[in-house]
Amino acid sequence: MIIVLKPRTTKEDITRVEQMIKRRGLDTHIVEGQEVTIIGCIGDTTKIDSKPFEVDSSVDKVMHVQEPYKLANRAFHPEDSIIDVSGVKVGGGNLALIAGPCSVESYDQVLEIAKAAKASGANLLRGGAFKPRTSPYSFQGLGLEGLNILCEVKKAVGLPIVTELMSPEHLDVFNEKVDLIQIGARNMQNFDLLKQLGQVDRPILLKRGLNATYEEWMMSAEYIMASGNENVILCERGIRTFETYTRNTLDLQSIPVLRKLTHLPVIVDPSHAGGKWWLVESMAKASIAAGADGLMVEVHNAPENALCDGAQSLKPRKYDELIKEVSQIAQVIGKSI
Amino acid sequence: MIIVLKPRTTKEDITRVEQMIKRRGLDTHIVEGQEVTIIGCIGDTTKIDSKPFEVDSSVDKVMHVQEPYKLANRAFHPEDSIIDVSGVKVGGGNLALIAGPCSVESYDQVLEIAKAAKASGANLLRGGAFKPRTSPYSFQGLGLEGLNILCEVKKAVGLPIVTELMSPEHLDVFNEKVDLIQIGARNMQNFDLLKQLGQVDRPILLKRGLNATYEEWMMSAEYIMASGNENVILCERGIRTFETYTRNTLDLQSIPVLRKLTHLPVIVDPSHAGGKWWLVESMAKASIAAGADGLMVEVHNAPENALCDGAQSLKPRKYDELIKEVSQIAQVIGKSI
Amino acid sequence: MIIVLKPRTTKEDITRVEQMIKRRGLDTHIVEGQEVTIIGCIGDTTKIDSKPFEVDSSVDKVMHVQEPYKLANRAFHPEDSIIDVSGVKVGGGNLALIAGPCSVESYDQVLEIAKAAKASGANLLRGGAFKPRTSPYSFQGLGLEGLNILCEVKKAVGLPIVTELMSPEHLDVFNEKVDLIQIGARNMQNFDLLKQLGQVDRPILLKRGLNATYEEWMMSAEYIMASGNENVILCERGIRTFETYTRNTLDLQSIPVLRKLTHLPVIVDPSHAGGKWWLVESMAKASIAAGADGLMVEVHNAPENALCDGAQSLKPRKYDELIKEVSQIAQVIGKSI
Amino acid sequence: MIIVLKPRTTKEDITRVEQMIKRRGLDTHIVEGQEVTIIGCIGDTTKIDSKPFEVDSSVDKVMHVQEPYKLANRAFHPEDSIIDVSGVKVGGGNLALIAGPCSVESYDQVLEIAKAAKASGANLLRGGAFKPRTSPYSFQGLGLEGLNILCEVKKAVGLPIVTELMSPEHLDVFNEKVDLIQIGARNMQNFDLLKQLGQVDRPILLKRGLNATYEEWMMSAEYIMASGNENVILCERGIRTFETYTRNTLDLQSIPVLRKLTHLPVIVDPSHAGGKWWLVESMAKASIAAGADGLMVEVHNAPENALCDGAQSLKPRKYDELIKEVSQIAQVIGKSI
Repeated sequence: MIIVLKPRTTKEDITRVEQMIKRRGLDTHIVEGQEVTIIGCIGDTTKIDSKPFEVDSSVDKVMHVQEPYKLANRAFHPEDSIIDVSGVKVGGGNLALIAGPCSVESYDQVLEIAKAAKASGANLLRGGAFKPRTSPYSFQGLGLEGLNILCEVKKAVGLPIVTELMSPEHLDVFNEKVDLIQIGARNMQNFDLLKQLGQVDRPILLKRGLNATYEEWMMSAEYIMASGNENVILCERGIRTFETYTRNTLDLQSIPVLRKLTHLPVIVDPSHAGGKWWLVESMAKASIAAGADGLMVEVHNAPENALCDGAQSLKPRKYDELIKEVSQIAQVIGKSI
Repeated sequence: MIIVLKPRTTKEDITRVEQMIKRRGLDTHIVEGQEVTIIGCIGDTTKIDSKPFEVDSSVDKVMHVQEPYKLANRAFHPEDSIIDVSGVKVGGGNLALIAGPCSVESYDQVLEIAKAAKASGANLLRGGAFKPRTSPYSFQGLGLEGLNILCEVKKAVGLPIVTELMSPEHLDVFNEKVDLIQIGARNMQNFDLLKQLGQVDRPILLKRGLNATYEEWMMSAEYIMASGNENVILCERGIRTFETYTRNTLDLQSIPVLRKLTHLPVIVDPSHAGGKWWLVESMAKASIAAGADGLMVEVHNAPENALCDGAQSLKPRKYDELIKEVSQIAQVIGKSI
Repeated sequence: MIIVLKPRTTKEDITRVEQMIKRRGLDTHIVEGQEVTIIGCIGDTTKIDSKPFEVDSSVDKVMHVQEPYKLANRAFHPEDSIIDVSGVKVGGGNLALIAGPCSVESYDQVLEIAKAAKASGANLLRGGAFKPRTSPYSFQGLGLEGLNILCEVKKAVGLPIVTELMSPEHLDVFNEKVDLIQIGARNMQNFDLLKQLGQVDRPILLKRGLNATYEEWMMSAEYIMASGNENVILCERGIRTFETYTRNTLDLQSIPVLRKLTHLPVIVDPSHAGGKWWLVESMAKASIAAGADGLMVEVHNAPENALCDGAQSLKPRKYDELIKEVSQIAQVIGKSI
Repeated sequence: MIIVLKPRTTKEDITRVEQMIKRRGLDTHIVEGQEVTIIGCIGDTTKIDSKPFEVDSSVDKVMHVQEPYKLANRAFHPEDSIIDVSGVKVGGGNLALIAGPCSVESYDQVLEIAKAAKASGANLLRGGAFKPRTSPYSFQGLGLEGLNILCEVKKAVGLPIVTELMSPEHLDVFNEKVDLIQIGARNMQNFDLLKQLGQVDRPILLKRGLNATYEEWMMSAEYIMASGNENVILCERGIRTFETYTRNTLDLQSIPVLRKLTHLPVIVDPSHAGGKWWLVESMAKASIAAGADGLMVEVHNAPENALCDGAQSLKPRKYDELIKEVSQIAQVIGKSI
């Protein structure tokens, strides 16, 4: 942490700021420039709150040298983390291929989709039971009934399941039944919920918030890890920009950036990003070419009758073709499915 | 709702789409253009989900004519709503002047600030007990102890209190003790929490999410209202843009826009938007000049020692000067404090 | 400028980077932290290009302590600049009230609007002769004919004129005839044009680009100033964000921020920001309350027949009412019209 | 074009709006809904300006059914356009591999890079002679001297050249010497320059503006095409978002979207988007996997000594490895280099 002082700061001011720093267990080093004086803070600053310094009347600004997270930081954990999702490995060269309908609608629907997806190569089954919807008048998901359908299909087909948790109220039932607990974009900074995920034995799939910087996303992973659960998989799903033709702008630079910042696996959800099925195929291939650790794709047998987001779902036959091409691209960059 | 069909659509396609519309209780009207055919949907479409149409193979796009919310919509409720916060009226020409520290730190601290703020003209006391913080290592607020301090200061000074609810777990205690329950920007689309606010007797202060459009903000108000609580006050607090010099970009156009879209009162929080105390004064005056129904301002007696966000707090003397000027501007535009 | 080195950097690496710094005429100061080493650069770094350092294999990042502009910087010129526009003073408490039609359409049209605007208190006349339009099929302005109309109305009514320059080709005629040369948002980083403005005797009205940071905006002013023309007035006109209900998001925090960063005057164009006439009034009042040095407002006698942007124009009667209120707000904050 | 009228509009109002439409050569069709009346405009509306309607006192909003561009629109030109750049075909399955230094520095530098790039598979040589720089104090390029160096290297190595035009002043010399004329992001809406490109025989490489929507980008291509030059190649280079870790956010969804909207080829510049060399490789592979018609990559033999943007340049050896992998991915999706 570097503290830049205002021009014309007195000796007393410098001493006062130095003491604030030392009280937090850090050492200081002063550099007097031509126009400004700066104070370098020496020691572990990853957990120091810089706000109090910003308010001091002599301080112009505070600059960070270290990232403000530790458990998620690759600097302190150089090897890729490999997360075990009920036997399916994710990260370190192992791809997660998550597929399934946006919403769970019925046992038959999920069963049919799950069988087809598995046959194409999917290794995890997704399906929404509790749905975050912008409008109170839209279909909100089947809730616990939907969760039970997923569990039955899991038994029948043998794919571990992924579904979204929206409320601390269902923490126990998710911990019991769900193989990979998804935290949606809109809850990425629901800090209360994040803290409670430390009590859970299951790995967490943490989606990027629509307006979350890489650092904020890392901080949310750090919340979960600091609460006691280090099994976090990150999921890029697009950010909000000025462009409205697509629902969100898929930020594939996040893949190499996160590879550098963190040891956690990073997968991509191309279905939610664009909001249109005809964008999914090219973005799925691009994600794997960019080095993603997996894909989460919406697959629906009858998108035109879907209760939610059918517009962004692939039919099983399209998904099958996609996975064939994805598999070839994975080979080119040294991964295999 | 208007449905635009793709070029070269057949009669059968048109009939199929028409039937989808009619099944939802709407009438149709077909306009055959030179290049495209469009279908107008006649009836109340505010609660119709347009997603299923977007998936149909003959549909190019779906355009909305009506806003998708009803209870919050000024079209169905032309007069300003006036919200009663334990005797303090907000809206319809009555200004809410909310002031207090970012975080509750001690009884003495809050008491001193509350007395000064009241003397300057504040009519509601704010203070954070549960704090949403980006980092798990930052101060998270005093929690219930902080809430109790607020209640004691309320007794001593006589100002109704405003504080943020972060979790459904505390719903009952907030309903009992808090005069105006704040929902923070990061929880604006915590739909589970929004639904539960319908069970509460207290009015809700709903902050705009960092990346929320006006329509999404209205939809979140609609969630609360549709759950049974129609007492909602909206609070503009800045949106996230590419500009990073300021913490967020305060969007004061939201004031006249919301005045047109909704009957609910709109106040402004200039402290959180900019993140710097020296931006608060000019933005507070601008907000009132633009027609806001109130201000929420951070006031701290010793910002340099604040446990959180001191950098954006005004000292009581500055707040006093501000309210004097704000009061004169309010008079110019026909309001009084 | 502070250079942060990567962990495990050798002595030789440090020496190499130090020499790169010294070759640019700066001194160095090394701070060895627990995890990282940083090098402070001592001397005037406002004109140093930091790019070459960022590429060095031992450098993690480069952080800036000083702003990278000098002539526009308030730190080197503490008093407000007052710009003289053919006798009308702008800045330092003097308000510019610029009014007129979006496009010049005819002598009679401009004359009628100019007379009305002047009677209401406007001291500068605007009107577009060359129009930047998104579509090649939209009306592109009357060009030189439009400019001549403006000049004739100037003679008749006595208001100096403001109009937009789009091409270096017209530099001479603008220098001869236009009192305040406007550079539009889309040309804010047309660096070739900016450099040529140094040869002009007239003051420049530099609009903020739709996606320009404060710093980039300052750098564009610096381009003009470094080329020899120090008479620059800045104009906030809204930035592009995710919100599409309004054309752009008016960023009024730019007023206090620029007041701090620069000595140049800052005015606001509320008409282009929102793109709707019913937003202009409240935003104009807010701008003055926030401390702006003036307003640029579109006024049209028959907006429904305007060849361009009528939707955002006020009728003369509305403008008159607005200036009355603006004038009272100006008084509250210690300015007068 | 669909015009939505306000509630409670009278017969006379409807007639007036209808006449405005008919005066523009369109037919009308009226749909009376339960709450609102809408008027469908029948005929070719691609070149109709909708602004005058938006101002009418009875009009609530105007919605567009057709895209407002024609020459660039795939709807009117279903096959891919293949652009011939001095013998190198771009589009329709033919990849442009553009490589070279950010800035032309010397004949030897460009020659060495060009030979290496050609050996790796590059088919076009890039190099900046005129450089758009944010700061007036940064290196502005060698200008015409740089252009001459490019021409000499072209003779020696046999690669057609690509370089950026910043000013109409150099139009003739570019037309004579440059094989593919680049228009940079900051000039994408320099409409005056765009219009003049119609007089040029050379194809144009049109970069996306930092804040340009797909539609605005198409409109800028339409400007060039409507002026008489139909040979336009589009180049995605990242957009500005809230994320600042990367210089810009590369929007690879633009590839499938533009494929749908236009027949023009689309290439990607991964070097400028991220601003960091270690992002280039994964983004280049992702671009090809997503279906791009080519890549523009910065290659420099000594990035640490580059006069500009070395931080985002690959060394020739890295570029060689990249093209090998890119070539394999191209094969997977049915293209060849």
